[in-house]
Amino acid sequence: MNQTIRKVLILLHQNNKQAMAVVDDSCRGLFFFTGNFYTTGNGESGMKLIDIREIFQNPNPYFEQEVSIGGWVRSIRNSKTFGFIVINDGTFFEPIQVVYTNELDNFEEVEKLNVGAALVVTGVLVETPNAKQPFEIQASKVEVEGASTSDYPLQKKRHSFEYLRTISHLRPRTNTFEAVFRVRSVLSYAIHKFFQERDFVYVHTPIITGSDCEGAGEMFQVTTLDLNNVPQDEAGEIDYGQDFFGKPANLTVSGQLNGEAYAMAFKKIYTFGPTFRAENSNTTRHAAEFWMIEPEIAFADLYDDMILAEEMLKYIIRYVTEHAKEEIDFFDSFVDKGLKQRLRNVLENDFARITYTEAVEILAKQNDRFDYKVTWGCDLQTEHERYLTEEIFKRPVFVTDYPKEIKAFYMKMNEDGRTVAAVDCLVPGIGEIIGGSQREDNLDKLKQRMMELQMSEKDYEFYLDLRKYGSARHAGFGLGFERCLMYLTGMQNIRDVVPFPRTVKNCEL
Amino acid sequence: MNQTIRKVLILLHQNNKQAMAVVDDSCRGLFFFTGNFYTTGNGESGMKLIDIREIFQNPNPYFEQEVSIGGWVRSIRNSKTFGFIVINDGTFFEPIQVVYTNELDNFEEVEKLNVGAALVVTGVLVETPNAKQPFEIQASKVEVEGASTSDYPLQKKRHSFEYLRTISHLRPRTNTFEAVFRVRSVLSYAIHKFFQERDFVYVHTPIITGSDCEGAGEMFQVTTLDLNNVPQDEAGEIDYGQDFFGKPANLTVSGQLNGEAYAMAFKKIYTFGPTFRAENSNTTRHAAEFWMIEPEIAFADLYDDMILAEEMLKYIIRYVTEHAKEEIDFFDSFVDKGLKQRLRNVLENDFARITYTEAVEILAKQNDRFDYKVTWGCDLQTEHERYLTEEIFKRPVFVTDYPKEIKAFYMKMNEDGRTVAAVDCLVPGIGEIIGGSQREDNLDKLKQRMMELQMSEKDYEFYLDLRKYGSARHAGFGLGFERCLMYLTGMQNIRDVVPFPRTVKNCEL
Repeated sequence: MNQTIRKVLILLHQNNKQAMAVVDDSCRGLFFFTGNFYTTGNGESGMKLIDIREIFQNPNPYFEQEVSIGGWVRSIRNSKTFGFIVINDGTFFEPIQVVYTNELDNFEEVEKLNVGAALVVTGVLVETPNAKQPFEIQASKVEVEGASTSDYPLQKKRHSFEYLRTISHLRPRTNTFEAVFRVRSVLSYAIHKFFQERDFVYVHTPIITGSDCEGAGEMFQVTTLDLNNVPQDEAGEIDYGQDFFGKPANLTVSGQLNGEAYAMAFKKIYTFGPTFRAENSNTTRHAAEFWMIEPEIAFADLYDDMILAEEMLKYIIRYVTEHAKEEIDFFDSFVDKGLKQRLRNVLENDFARITYTEAVEILAKQNDRFDYKVTWGCDLQTEHERYLTEEIFKRPVFVTDYPKEIKAFYMKMNEDGRTVAAVDCLVPGIGEIIGGSQREDNLDKLKQRMMELQMSEKDYEFYLDLRKYGSARHAGFGLGFERCLMYLTGMQNIRDVVPFPRTVKNCEL
Repeated sequence: MNQTIRKVLILLHQNNKQAMAVVDDSCRGLFFFTGNFYTTGNGESGMKLIDIREIFQNPNPYFEQEVSIGGWVRSIRNSKTFGFIVINDGTFFEPIQVVYTNELDNFEEVEKLNVGAALVVTGVLVETPNAKQPFEIQASKVEVEGASTSDYPLQKKRHSFEYLRTISHLRPRTNTFEAVFRVRSVLSYAIHKFFQERDFVYVHTPIITGSDCEGAGEMFQVTTLDLNNVPQDEAGEIDYGQDFFGKPANLTVSGQLNGEAYAMAFKKIYTFGPTFRAENSNTTRHAAEFWMIEPEIAFADLYDDMILAEEMLKYIIRYVTEHAKEEIDFFDSFVDKGLKQRLRNVLENDFARITYTEAVEILAKQNDRFDYKVTWGCDLQTEHERYLTEEIFKRPVFVTDYPKEIKAFYMKMNEDGRTVAAVDCLVPGIGEIIGGSQREDNLDKLKQRMMELQMSEKDYEFYLDLRKYGSARHAGFGLGFERCLMYLTGMQNIRDVVPFPRTVKNCEL
């Protein structure tokens, strides 16, 4: 057991990816190529599997070389003497074509393969300058890692998104959902990268909470009480003393108030985590569980907040269009024609700014065209938001300074006494994508507002402390991650951008 | 409202951070320095605040220049004619010293300041070659953004961690917790960076779930039923048809099974999200809510899994020690002497490997020293794990091939029929930090094992599908994020590495 593992050879150092071969004292050779290859077989020196992404991004070193890939059959067709298999390994949007002939030892096994089978293919990569694909693998060996069956649900034909929702464990194997969920991953990283490069501190605000941040939204209760026999105290009330936390607990609807506490220590923070709404809304835009990004900046006001929001949106759009190019091309061609033009429009223009009061003046003149008529004091509906950003400004627009009555208690009162320093960012094609505000940093004004709204100071003691001990101007916003993802992909239903969506009456897998 | 925002000037391009000044048509000047500065006042051209981090990391351009910083008073002392304020803005572990004199307009206000007050200080940055700190700010202006009070809980004295837990909204303003929570952020990013650089797809597995992955662990129930009046059906059972999801739902204990579905599409995936245990364990290592990282790799076996785990641990340790240097120095000096040596030891050595059976042989010889005696078949306790890694190997060690009885149903059966392809990674100072396995990819063997354990196939239909349609060798592991953070900081209580910890009878803020 005192075996030492020694690195014996650096095989390859390319594209910042290190590769090495390791051999332990018992002479079992372990090949490992960081990020690209894995051994096959129990540690035996074996085949090295290369990501199809690597071949597409840098094919030259592999031409006329033997390569091995592991992946799943997207389609297969054959004649008596040869055949073609299209293989995708999930590392790249494009699949690779494998050509095989009846010289394969297991030709008969291969020609009977079904779509979905997992294969390890070894062969020479050859250029195919006259074909649709720039290269193909001429297989010398096709190992069947796991077969598939003729009733495999993803045969090579179009399936409706509705149907694919019923097989959420398999749908990432289709083009559309492979693209959606790679963009989801790339977008997540872009968000972290943006904030981390600017020295923001990432804060994990709690998921289970005893308080309801916005005083709004129906919440899920979290409990370990036996619902068959809910304990009661002497007064006949639920005895939460017996619950796990000794009191009622819910799933968070926002990390903002906790985030503010950390902004008052770190100056620049962001959250990125799941949030929950128990709203009985069966729409294409509502999910019970979704992810949210909430930056909070101290020594900063509403203007800084808007600059940050604009910069962030442009950064993440740029990052995703560069790092998921094939996927965005696909969405532009097959899901939402015009997507790339719309994203370019965001990148190339400064966002417009308008006050709520100015916006209402514009909109009220157009009340004929709206289902909901606009008057000062009303909340803006999606139809109004889209009209502003699509028809009036033809680019993203920040709407600021909303009536205090339609905004949350913590927003900073403006000097007019009727509006608060709130901002919504509206984008063409979707309407509101970001909502933010400068926060009320004056202890007395905050208490006053809470009193007006009959909120209990006791419940918000910690929040008031932040105004008592070294209060500072601060502001922040919330970005709904799924809404942002829908915007970047053109997908129309939130159920199709969440790996395993949770909605009313739906909590599968 | 058709105002356009025009970029008028690139002021500075330094350290890869862009800076610009923008002015809109109404001539309100907006200054924004990406990642470093914010405007002051409602969009009026004002003071630019610089991060203290920026000054420490690159002071030369600022010497003899006027700078403005916004931050909080860590300490203050003064005589009749001058004084010193130590200010921290949370962007850097080190605070900066500000010197002021009675020439300040508001000298009397400043000399009465309490610890914790929020200030905006303007002055010249001067080198102080003979002082402890390399530079200080000679203030020409000290604006009180928000005062503090004499009962501010964080006076300049040592507070116990126990006490600080009662003010979790303020404790990130102390040295220790500023360091902990910056490392938490840097570590999170290191994890994303590691996997994204290797083209792993980040998957948000669901938080609310209808199933219990490991068939283990007490779970929190999630419900919208009225606990005062739980609805019953005709048979007297709880009528979950009226609950939000139409059936019982819980908080996830692991994203693994869902992650496997995505590994079978993307080949390389990872999760990083909150997980939950409703265990009634009041220990320093258990929290009800914690974050977990679960990579899953297809066309890969247990050996690949170990290589990935070792490479990941080394990468994140290297990243954090480089990017949170001051914090790690602090922990090494004041929290856990020897920390840096221990981390270096991990970086510089290849991890050892040993089978469970070999480990038991070694440990059983030492049974005298253990509270729990070791025999083949028993689960290893922390005392055994630490003995192996600290005394026997003096470096991290992978223990593989555990008896099937003490491991989960989904682990791949070894050829001996008694052990499974499981692996735990043990590290000095803590014991198990990672647990993983190769998964059973054979449909019949998996069904067989589920039958032995009297598990319902129906509940795992989707999981069995993954073996039915294109099954492939695959493996993965789980890294408890908080345990990893404790290891990297030397902090001893999980409550001190979670911003707002949730434990038995504790769900504050």
